[in-house]
Amino acid sequence: MTGDERAIRKLVETWLAASTAGDVATVLSLMADDVVFMVPGREPFGKVAFAAASQGMKDIRIEGRSDIQEIEILDSWAWMRNYLEVTITPAAGAAPVWRSGYTLTILRKTADGRWVIARDANLLGEAKR
Amino acid sequence: MTGDERAIRKLVETWLAASTAGDVATVLSLMADDVVFMVPGREPFGKVAFAAASQGMKDIRIEGRSDIQEIEILDSWAWMRNYLEVTITPAAGAAPVWRSGYTLTILRKTADGRWVIARDANLLGEAKR
Repeated sequence: MTGDERAIRKLVETWLAASTAGDVATVLSLMADDVVFMVPGREPFGKVAFAAASQGMKDIRIEGRSDIQEIEILDSWAWMRNYLEVTITPAAGAAPVWRSGYTLTILRKTADGRWVIARDANLLGEAKR
Repeated sequence: MTGDERAIRKLVETWLAASTAGDVATVLSLMADDVVFMVPGREPFGKVAFAAASQGMKDIRIEGRSDIQEIEILDSWAWMRNYLEVTITPAAGAAPVWRSGYTLTILRKTADGRWVIARDANLLGEAKR
């Protein structure tokens, strides 16, 4: 495994841990300023909209588990296919919701050598447990 | 516009025209043998499953229109973000169904200089007209 692949796997771990901790600043630091997120049924959105949505989810606990399917590194770009299982628990104590599915992500290496998410297609849907 | 970008735009045009014509052989020639297609709500699938599904759609007319959002070329790899509107008309004369949405696609340049689709995340959902 190359250092770049290790760094990308670490990025995914950091993303999931920061999401669970409600550490929005860390999550935002893992994406490019011009990031584009794509999910079914709505228009693509960027970093500002992601941040705003995260502020509205402060009481919600998000626990994610990833199973990276493949990573391909092309100089200062990379793409990754990931499988995610996410448990979303409203703080109010309502029953948790599960979502699972695949993502296809484009990453970019910044001038200072950090990997960040540049584009992300998220195909997660409701899952049963 | 570079020759590579022109070739990728041409691939999209050829894909849509061949889909409308029911020319499955041409559509299959535009994807890598190890292609992975991702859509919401089902497991990723490859070329054999794509071909089998296409055989089952011989009586259905598919008309697609694309509005490519961006193409980034990285040597012998590329990624593309596309917006698609698709009209699906059953030959039986039933009312058409519309689907629209975004795709994120990884392309690869083959040893003989052709671009093919390697990975594709398809976020299209039902649309109203």
